[in-house]
Amino acid sequence: MTTQVIVLNGGSSSGKSGIARCLQAILPDPWIDLGVDTLLDRLPPSLRDSGAGAMVGAQGEVTLGPGFREVEHAWLTGIAAMARAGARIVFDDVFLGGATSQERCRAHLAGLEVVWVGVRCDATIAAGRELARGDRVTGMAAAQADVVHQGVVYDLVVDTSHTESLDCARAIAAYVT
Amino acid sequence: MTTQVIVLNGGSSSGKSGIARCLQAILPDPWIDLGVDTLLDRLPPSLRDSGAGAMVGAQGEVTLGPGFREVEHAWLTGIAAMARAGARIVFDDVFLGGATSQERCRAHLAGLEVVWVGVRCDATIAAGRELARGDRVTGMAAAQADVVHQGVVYDLVVDTSHTESLDCARAIAAYVT
Amino acid sequence: MTTQVIVLNGGSSSGKSGIARCLQAILPDPWIDLGVDTLLDRLPPSLRDSGAGAMVGAQGEVTLGPGFREVEHAWLTGIAAMARAGARIVFDDVFLGGATSQERCRAHLAGLEVVWVGVRCDATIAAGRELARGDRVTGMAAAQADVVHQGVVYDLVVDTSHTESLDCARAIAAYVT
Amino acid sequence: MTTQVIVLNGGSSSGKSGIARCLQAILPDPWIDLGVDTLLDRLPPSLRDSGAGAMVGAQGEVTLGPGFREVEHAWLTGIAAMARAGARIVFDDVFLGGATSQERCRAHLAGLEVVWVGVRCDATIAAGRELARGDRVTGMAAAQADVVHQGVVYDLVVDTSHTESLDCARAIAAYVT
Repeated sequence: MTTQVIVLNGGSSSGKSGIARCLQAILPDPWIDLGVDTLLDRLPPSLRDSGAGAMVGAQGEVTLGPGFREVEHAWLTGIAAMARAGARIVFDDVFLGGATSQERCRAHLAGLEVVWVGVRCDATIAAGRELARGDRVTGMAAAQADVVHQGVVYDLVVDTSHTESLDCARAIAAYVT
Repeated sequence: MTTQVIVLNGGSSSGKSGIARCLQAILPDPWIDLGVDTLLDRLPPSLRDSGAGAMVGAQGEVTLGPGFREVEHAWLTGIAAMARAGARIVFDDVFLGGATSQERCRAHLAGLEVVWVGVRCDATIAAGRELARGDRVTGMAAAQADVVHQGVVYDLVVDTSHTESLDCARAIAAYVT
Repeated sequence: MTTQVIVLNGGSSSGKSGIARCLQAILPDPWIDLGVDTLLDRLPPSLRDSGAGAMVGAQGEVTLGPGFREVEHAWLTGIAAMARAGARIVFDDVFLGGATSQERCRAHLAGLEVVWVGVRCDATIAAGRELARGDRVTGMAAAQADVVHQGVVYDLVVDTSHTESLDCARAIAAYVT
Repeated sequence: MTTQVIVLNGGSSSGKSGIARCLQAILPDPWIDLGVDTLLDRLPPSLRDSGAGAMVGAQGEVTLGPGFREVEHAWLTGIAAMARAGARIVFDDVFLGGATSQERCRAHLAGLEVVWVGVRCDATIAAGRELARGDRVTGMAAAQADVVHQGVVYDLVVDTSHTESLDCARAIAAYVT
């Protein structure tokens, strides 16, 4: 069956966006790149930096309140509907709850042909890249590097610590049917 | 019935994004701001600046090919699914085809409670704002100012030529139930 | 004598950047647009959100520490040197100290042909535009709207409350020799 | 003597900006990060995509016309003046003319204590990173990877092909006095 969704799960600064853009460039069909960052960008002020919504603490710890969860449910429902309507979607996410987050995601994507990809990056290296990009709260990368993979089951895992985004994308492309 | 989607239709540089952000700030419930610009940002290279996808000509004229139309259909289907799943959505679009574009949008949003808003701006003023923002191809604003409203039916029309975004948002908020 | 520097002074969200871009578009010679925002963007982490550097409080109040002042002195010295070396510069700034800030700026620009422009915007309107742009701490616009003009002497004053950026730019261009 | 300017020279997508941000984070004193990209961002429309100014061709080849050269001279003069006035500057540039570009840069920085750093990256790897970042014309990275180093003399050379930005920054920091 034809792959409909590629889920990229990894911590902050693990390299998901770069891999997603490489996938868009090398896969023969058009793929749309949507992920949790797109949703976060489109939230109203009341769900940013608030207990009800998404909040990043001083050490980079992220908390997601009930208001964010409601919106995220609708967002995932919509992403799944796009895929069912024929769009190919690269979906990048940060499974802060590990296996629990994957279950939530899997439930929404029911019936779709999904390739699950773990995007790993050594915590120290990710923290260095976080510094180099300069637009994230210091600490997010290290805090998320391992926890987002706990209990998560993948079709394949790539590791950006010593592999370029484009090479990771090529490895993933080989799984896409 | 409760409003589920606010559609803002207007030409480039007519002020849709500013109104959307004001709506997010003043409406009591959380509204997600999604529109055609979000989709354009997430397209693969093969659908950007290509005959198959979205292309902006030297005079600011926009052409949308069959590849874009396929993706747009899935995108609209997903937006509607998000709204049906409980998200409140400010959806800003540019109805290049006027009434035909509205019909396509309306078909996707079937069964949802929609407020249709026309965002007008005098073509000369919009062209000046295009220059002032500096990130759009010169000519888009003037080319789209009138054509996007041809035959389109609205619940209300705001005009940013001499009214601030926030005041336009307040007028729209009064229609939201 | 030929104008070498156009100083645009105004509060946050008063419309300086839009006017600067319009000036670049309409003036026959090439003008470089540099201002305090460019400097703020290039600061190291130690001078951002720190008592030593530039800090924006929860109500939008800006404080500038001694570390920022040292860098600003070098920055102004460099801007003046660029102008003396032949670059035409649109310099936008926020004179938080009113007349005192202008004196500091004037001392650095000594010997250069400068057009001093006040960019005014009604505080309530600027606050609305701050909301509409969505990328500034709420409160900056209102806090700065009047204070930045106290005691400042201008060659001309434009008011963006009811005048478009392009029309303000045209008024300024008439002063440029 | 105390280092006043760190020049980072390397091709597009070689990793200069990431190294600059890491330097800002790890060096004990405040360093301002200015480079040719900052100048390009502030140019008027007449010097963008024009024969007189800076132009990027369809294959990523960059041409710089006489209008750009005039402005660049003033820009370099100003950067040097900032450093003489006490600012510590990380200056990143792309020496399209190799040794000739270095001479021009060196002439402007006369009398200043400069650390010259070559930022190398394998052309194929840089091309992959260009794809991954998605905001550059394809071809720039490969076209510039080697040519910008021809005949250039460095105090040290870092290679981002297999070394992280932060580790490159640490190597450079060891040269800063």
